[in-house]
Amino acid sequence: MPVMQVERQTDSNPAGVEGLLERRYSPYAFSPRPVEPEKLRQLFEAARSAPSSYNEQPWRFVVARREDAEGFGRLLDTLVDQNRKWARNAPVLVLSVAKVDFTHSGQPNRHAWYDVGQAAAYLTLQATELGLYVHQMAGFDPVKARQLLSIPEGYEPAAMMAVGYPGETESLPEALRQSGSTRRPRKPLDTLLFEGTWARPWSPAVGDSSSTGIQ
Amino acid sequence: MPVMQVERQTDSNPAGVEGLLERRYSPYAFSPRPVEPEKLRQLFEAARSAPSSYNEQPWRFVVARREDAEGFGRLLDTLVDQNRKWARNAPVLVLSVAKVDFTHSGQPNRHAWYDVGQAAAYLTLQATELGLYVHQMAGFDPVKARQLLSIPEGYEPAAMMAVGYPGETESLPEALRQSGSTRRPRKPLDTLLFEGTWARPWSPAVGDSSSTGIQ
Repeated sequence: MPVMQVERQTDSNPAGVEGLLERRYSPYAFSPRPVEPEKLRQLFEAARSAPSSYNEQPWRFVVARREDAEGFGRLLDTLVDQNRKWARNAPVLVLSVAKVDFTHSGQPNRHAWYDVGQAAAYLTLQATELGLYVHQMAGFDPVKARQLLSIPEGYEPAAMMAVGYPGETESLPEALRQSGSTRRPRKPLDTLLFEGTWARPWSPAVGDSSSTGIQ
Repeated sequence: MPVMQVERQTDSNPAGVEGLLERRYSPYAFSPRPVEPEKLRQLFEAARSAPSSYNEQPWRFVVARREDAEGFGRLLDTLVDQNRKWARNAPVLVLSVAKVDFTHSGQPNRHAWYDVGQAAAYLTLQATELGLYVHQMAGFDPVKARQLLSIPEGYEPAAMMAVGYPGETESLPEALRQSGSTRRPRKPLDTLLFEGTWARPWSPAVGDSSSTGIQ
């Protein structure tokens, strides 16, 4: 198993995508402040602009704001206990759903989940720019989600997202106070990249121009 | 099948994520200009900063620059003919690969492809900011990719990406000249969004504050 790198904490605040990626994290503590409807709209506009295989756009989203106690309760009920504890304080919950077959052919779409992931990523970066944060969760029951939210066959519940402004970590259960504000470590680039074949690990930072070799 | 909306072409050039998403498209024509190593590094830094289920970071990338004729040829060989025609002129090809089981448990990672999609999306937006464009392709042979690139069991070839600066569409085969520079239509938001249950379509733009209803 590769060694993890702990990200450097920097005081810099670079502009653009790099800055957004540095600011982005998955909070456990949310402010009770509601998310403005116009900002919610911007999040989903970002999501739907993602590219997708055959332009299928296999992403769907079930959205629930806390004001809608019934809808919010349904999404909350699908979460595992550990997530329900903190996610109940988020102003918005969103379940992403993947349409797993192509509309044009009925054949399985190999990239349905991949493309829903792309849409979620665009949503997340748009959120970060607006001062909103997104905490995605695998910890929910997809079978229960299908039942409670009436999700039809051909669609699969993908990931749950809590969306909102960040809140005070004092409001968190003890176990989450530490983990809620730190970025989890990332694997070093040279364990993720290969050059032209899996047999040759690669790092673009080291001896780049001469490492191409062979021909 | 829902009606598609053709995106408005605007003269505006908004800053930030919205502007990046507006500029982003998947070109067929690439400039022969190589991609600077430092920019390549920035693309993969963006990719590896993506969130993932259990922080598994299931993304891997096999990268080939045209200068590496052998490696580049291997990636090119996995493409379907239709993609090979134009992708051979891209300065960089990248195959994204998904690690489909969790490292900590050996159990299937339901979100492996979703998370690789997120990493690809971060890479793509970072590229757009740097003036680079990414054209992702489903049209390649994953079995051939596994063989030619020595991808081990437990990993699945996900998507091929051509990366580079945009080029002159005059260099394209006739059939691609039109399609190469236009954004494909997107489904309207109200066909993608549901409020609290699949039974209730939702649009955040229309009558928002009063549409929550029920409670």
